Amino acid sequence: MKTISKLIPLLLLIFMSCKEEEKTTEVSESETLKSHPNLILTQESVAEIKAHLGSIPVFDATLAKVQEEVDLAIAEGIDVPIPKDMAGGYTHTQHKANYDHMQKAGVLFQLLGDEKYAIYIRDMLLEYAALFPTLGRHPQERSYSRGKFFWQCLNDSNWLVYTSQAYDCIYDWLPKEQSDHLNRTLFKPYADFLSVETPKFFNRVHNHSTWGNVAVGMIALVMDDDELLDRALYGLEDDNIDPNELDDDGGVIKDKDGKAGFFANLDSPFSPDGFYTEGPYYQRYAMYPFMIFAEALHNKKPELKIFEYKDGVLLKAVDALLNLTDADGEFFPLNDGQKGMSYYTASLVSAVDIAYYYGSQRPELLSVAKAQNKVQLDATGLAVAIGLKEGKEQPFIKKSMELTDGRNGDEGAVGILRHQDDNAAMTLVMKYTGQGLSHGHYDKLSFSLYEDGEEVLQDYGLSRFVNVEQKNGGGYLKENKTFAKHTIAHNTVIQDETSHFDYDFVTGSRHHSDRYVFDASNPQIQIMGAKEHNAYPNTSFHRTMVMVKDSTLAKPYIIDVFKVLSNTAHQYDLPYYYFGQIVATSFKTEAPKALEPLGTKNGYQHLWKEAESTANADHIQFTWLNNQIFYSITSATHAKDKVLLARTGANDPEFNLRRDPAMILRKENTASAVFASVIEPHGVYNAVSETADNAYSQFESVTVVLDEEAYTAIVLKMTSGASKLLILSNLDPNNETEHNLKIGANNYQWTGAYYFQ
Amino acid sequence: MKTISKLIPLLLLIFMSCKEEEKTTEVSESETLKSHPNLILTQESVAEIKAHLGSIPVFDATLAKVQEEVDLAIAEGIDVPIPKDMAGGYTHTQHKANYDHMQKAGVLFQLLGDEKYAIYIRDMLLEYAALFPTLGRHPQERSYSRGKFFWQCLNDSNWLVYTSQAYDCIYDWLPKEQSDHLNRTLFKPYADFLSVETPKFFNRVHNHSTWGNVAVGMIALVMDDDELLDRALYGLEDDNIDPNELDDDGGVIKDKDGKAGFFANLDSPFSPDGFYTEGPYYQRYAMYPFMIFAEALHNKKPELKIFEYKDGVLLKAVDALLNLTDADGEFFPLNDGQKGMSYYTASLVSAVDIAYYYGSQRPELLSVAKAQNKVQLDATGLAVAIGLKEGKEQPFIKKSMELTDGRNGDEGAVGILRHQDDNAAMTLVMKYTGQGLSHGHYDKLSFSLYEDGEEVLQDYGLSRFVNVEQKNGGGYLKENKTFAKHTIAHNTVIQDETSHFDYDFVTGSRHHSDRYVFDASNPQIQIMGAKEHNAYPNTSFHRTMVMVKDSTLAKPYIIDVFKVLSNTAHQYDLPYYYFGQIVATSFKTEAPKALEPLGTKNGYQHLWKEAESTANADHIQFTWLNNQIFYSITSATHAKDKVLLARTGANDPEFNLRRDPAMILRKENTASAVFASVIEPHGVYNAVSETADNAYSQFESVTVVLDEEAYTAIVLKMTSGASKLLILSNLDPNNETEHNLKIGANNYQWTGAYYFQ
Repeated sequence: MKTISKLIPLLLLIFMSCKEEEKTTEVSESETLKSHPNLILTQESVAEIKAHLGSIPVFDATLAKVQEEVDLAIAEGIDVPIPKDMAGGYTHTQHKANYDHMQKAGVLFQLLGDEKYAIYIRDMLLEYAALFPTLGRHPQERSYSRGKFFWQCLNDSNWLVYTSQAYDCIYDWLPKEQSDHLNRTLFKPYADFLSVETPKFFNRVHNHSTWGNVAVGMIALVMDDDELLDRALYGLEDDNIDPNELDDDGGVIKDKDGKAGFFANLDSPFSPDGFYTEGPYYQRYAMYPFMIFAEALHNKKPELKIFEYKDGVLLKAVDALLNLTDADGEFFPLNDGQKGMSYYTASLVSAVDIAYYYGSQRPELLSVAKAQNKVQLDATGLAVAIGLKEGKEQPFIKKSMELTDGRNGDEGAVGILRHQDDNAAMTLVMKYTGQGLSHGHYDKLSFSLYEDGEEVLQDYGLSRFVNVEQKNGGGYLKENKTFAKHTIAHNTVIQDETSHFDYDFVTGSRHHSDRYVFDASNPQIQIMGAKEHNAYPNTSFHRTMVMVKDSTLAKPYIIDVFKVLSNTAHQYDLPYYYFGQIVATSFKTEAPKALEPLGTKNGYQHLWKEAESTANADHIQFTWLNNQIFYSITSATHAKDKVLLARTGANDPEFNLRRDPAMILRKENTASAVFASVIEPHGVYNAVSETADNAYSQFESVTVVLDEEAYTAIVLKMTSGASKLLILSNLDPNNETEHNLKIGANNYQWTGAYYFQ
Repeated sequence: MKTISKLIPLLLLIFMSCKEEEKTTEVSESETLKSHPNLILTQESVAEIKAHLGSIPVFDATLAKVQEEVDLAIAEGIDVPIPKDMAGGYTHTQHKANYDHMQKAGVLFQLLGDEKYAIYIRDMLLEYAALFPTLGRHPQERSYSRGKFFWQCLNDSNWLVYTSQAYDCIYDWLPKEQSDHLNRTLFKPYADFLSVETPKFFNRVHNHSTWGNVAVGMIALVMDDDELLDRALYGLEDDNIDPNELDDDGGVIKDKDGKAGFFANLDSPFSPDGFYTEGPYYQRYAMYPFMIFAEALHNKKPELKIFEYKDGVLLKAVDALLNLTDADGEFFPLNDGQKGMSYYTASLVSAVDIAYYYGSQRPELLSVAKAQNKVQLDATGLAVAIGLKEGKEQPFIKKSMELTDGRNGDEGAVGILRHQDDNAAMTLVMKYTGQGLSHGHYDKLSFSLYEDGEEVLQDYGLSRFVNVEQKNGGGYLKENKTFAKHTIAHNTVIQDETSHFDYDFVTGSRHHSDRYVFDASNPQIQIMGAKEHNAYPNTSFHRTMVMVKDSTLAKPYIIDVFKVLSNTAHQYDLPYYYFGQIVATSFKTEAPKALEPLGTKNGYQHLWKEAESTANADHIQFTWLNNQIFYSITSATHAKDKVLLARTGANDPEFNLRRDPAMILRKENTASAVFASVIEPHGVYNAVSETADNAYSQFESVTVVLDEEAYTAIVLKMTSGASKLLILSNLDPNNETEHNLKIGANNYQWTGAYYFQ
């Protein structure tokens, strides 16, 4: 590949000759002289770390690995190719590697004192400084904000966030002529490019813009450029952005409050609980710029008290994110989320270390760091590694919790119910949030269920293979819009085969679901519920999910009551996306001669209809086997209700979708409906002993015995002969209200949102 | 459930009163008096074990676990229900548990000396003795050989094999009246029932009959009944079986040599290498009766020298079986085999311990035993546990090997090529055996490929959920016959959508494939190949598979050359059953409006046609992602060749089949054809760092540059610019023959079956 290494001697000559002119640079010499590094590493922390080197195992091991990696990169030589490729392609990957290696080389230079690392950064920066002025916007025209070294400004901002740290590490080592040259030729113009020249990217409330703000802010701190820092913190004053303009993903550019900059990105997408409205996958992505810039601000602008901002929301956000994971540490794929992403990712190593150091040194965070088995190479990572060396860690126990959404915490929430004992770790996640900006999915009141680290009933997640170039350059696939974001891709109710808010982003963004009840105080009966009044005009949803640990059963079961009320008759579909193989169905299934798509639009066109059955009974039962575990759903039905068995993959010429199955309950031509089901793991198959223990459901039937405006009552009959009655108070969730209800001949009296016995 | 426990006091009264009459029993008192146990446990081994108790960890741990299990069973009480259910159902499962508990209780009684275990066995046997005379054949009419306590005699034989051991353990402890009563009322009639009354089950060469023979043989040894023992060892003299009669699975009952009994079952299904013609799954099942009876014969009839029989075939069989596993110890599912079955199963614990003790105490077997982490509770298990305590184990390294099929080793073989280093453990399994009796599949020259313990290109295995009652009572599903056994379910060539031998068992059983070349001496280039002349009239197959470890590539790749020659034009299909998601195809795929089955019969009716493409080039490339690993198949084509993408699940109303994908190469209207492909793992995806390393195939193209009767030559072009030439000698595999071949302008000279450079 073509690089410009041969230009370096020439460039060095140019520096010498224009030494005089460079005195006009805006940053005064006195301010920066001998003060670097002062962003992430500081002169004090470097001294402290050096004093500990060789004695703190996790820190030393991380450092050794980083050194090995950078030494290899140095041995391979500098390669700054002319930008050309999409994500996953050669030039993209190389520029990514470059900023990563520079950032690490900066740390190595400071901690090990070997000049070769400084030289490596210097030489590479000089190549970038020679390349930058020659570039227009990136030749790939896919993005609403095309970058310089990358196809989108987002990646260019990544470059600058990392490279600023490298630059800080060698700033004092560089001859002033060279830093002036780099400031003037590369960094200042690059910061302007990402901000004033690309306002739609910069002046926005979005994870992209957070990266952009932080990129400009970090280089501002290195160069001591307060005007740039202001721009980073508070945005551009004039951006001339059309308030209706949308980005590649269909999200609006302009924030509804008209605010922009780092503080705006801290204010609005984060709830007071630290939940980030785009969802955990993007929160994970944004955590690095949020936390690393906070650390830099703390070091350089302590007067901003950034870690106390909004009642300590950044530290809370780390905790929220760690709780938004399954037993393996993988993030729940709410909204756009690629499965498999976990708290082992680098941005969470950084976030956990920073949260430990600048928070209250919670020993629970150390156990996460121990699992990560690496640390950030600065004072925060040193503190974590010392904590681990001293054996201070305590288990990070994920509890049931509700994380509110919305800047004020009043725009719905995510509810998480958990149960853990020797038999199973079950996790139930229910989403009743706001839209979640441009990465939001149309899935009000949807849920997913996990057993240990495995999905039992899945949220499909996004349709994308991040950084797999063959798949649309690693970008979003068109099926993300035509399937994954649609309601039918989720475990929630769809009316008349139309997605929530008619799949309209502006409408969806105007509304959020409403929290109704969340009570995890009794580990035997944990309950959460929410309402949604806007997904469809004149139709309201009320879903309640209960996790019950019955002492007579090995594992907990879930009661799922989804009450729908409309003023006109509709068709209602409720899918359950299971995995594995069907073991038994109470309804008769027939094999179609040919497979037809389930519908024509709103994601239905991507599902093959493998079977269509009629319940023909007052309940149905569906048993399947996955990961050697038997599961059943038992659901109250009317005789004429339909059960559809479907599988993704229709109208998918490039095989972008997984071929995953769903069981869909369908109620037709009714204004009101109650979907009442029990979901249970109940047995195990052992392929070595070939034994099937408890292969049958523990439930005989589920029946809706009462459904009024104020109350809904469900009876669960178990195969043991026992039966359970659940009464839900539909209008008053107050846990002190006394209720009195007659069902048939019996009178029930209780206090609070539900009765269960 | 109804049991007959209340009868016991009455039965005891009867014994007392008929004491006198019982003296007429055929077994003389002197022979058995105080000689028991003498089958698996012996008086000497019991003394030796007792001397070691408490000091040999694995033995002690196994014993403690068995004791816990049996104590629980004793606490739950005896339950001998009236037989009613199919496999997986209540009565089936209970009778299974009973013999298991009795066998274990016998061991506990001998080793711990606590009479409660003997009482438990006695009381249960008395219930069985009361029940047995009241029973006709089992009410379920599914089997060709309906049993008494179970739906098929096979399970009844299991019962007797285990129960004989329990009986042996308490024989001397029982009052003679009781043992006489049990012999007369239960055991002798039961042995007659399984043999003379069910000759089609007993007098056969089949794993079922092995169990039957051993059941009769074991109880014969307990009762010292030489007439019964003769019957077990050599079969019934007159069985009146129609030589054309078939069993439930379509297998013939009558052996072609007319032999029967234990020795016949040892002679014929085992090759001299210890390969069992039904395949590893059934070999695993049969190993227990083979080995346990051998141990009993060794103890009681040492003059038979059973472990030396057929050049030590039983010991070789254990070794063969351990080698027929993937990296996780799971058996290759050749023929009917349920995936997940592994050498952790109880019959392999027994087999490994017996092979260690009666073989040459090979330390490699100890490492398998260590992984199993339990031992057989007898002298063999004690020896293994002592070996482990002394740290004598050495790794059991599975090597490339060929295991011949057929009683004389001249009926084809299974070839296994392996490569193992830090990057990957790759295993390639090719099947060119005989039919494999009634559990055989119609898949001449098929193969499967594994990376570490995961399937890359799969053999579908059987269609059955063993012991899952909801799935056809745990028995074979009809899709086993309509899909899984058919050729299209395997990675081999199908002519004109018709299975090998036209799916005719008798024809298939008359033939076997022919070994052609197997050379694993060079770890960089390992080769195996075989020919098949009878799968279709006037068509011959010759497949060669080469595992190449190129020093420039991280992992090995496979060259697959399948040469087909016929005297008339046909359609040839070659499926590759991959897993996971398609990343890229060189051919254009279009989404059908509706999915149609791929064909109407021979298994084709069970595949949905997801895409039908034309190669439109001289090679195709197909890249997919599974388990975060990128794989590609690059294959030489004619422009008009078809590529079909298919998935199992059509015409499957009960969802008995998995929904697994296949890429099928199709050549139409041609008499001769060469399918030449490279199969390679080439990259990894990391979902946490979101990096795709080496997502592209390392091969540019595969071309057949020469195809004659005597030679076939293939050129592989790599993306690195390198290229490789493979020349196969089609007629002479001798490794000393010198060859001289001109291809285009170049002359190639080499010695042996192939040239590769």
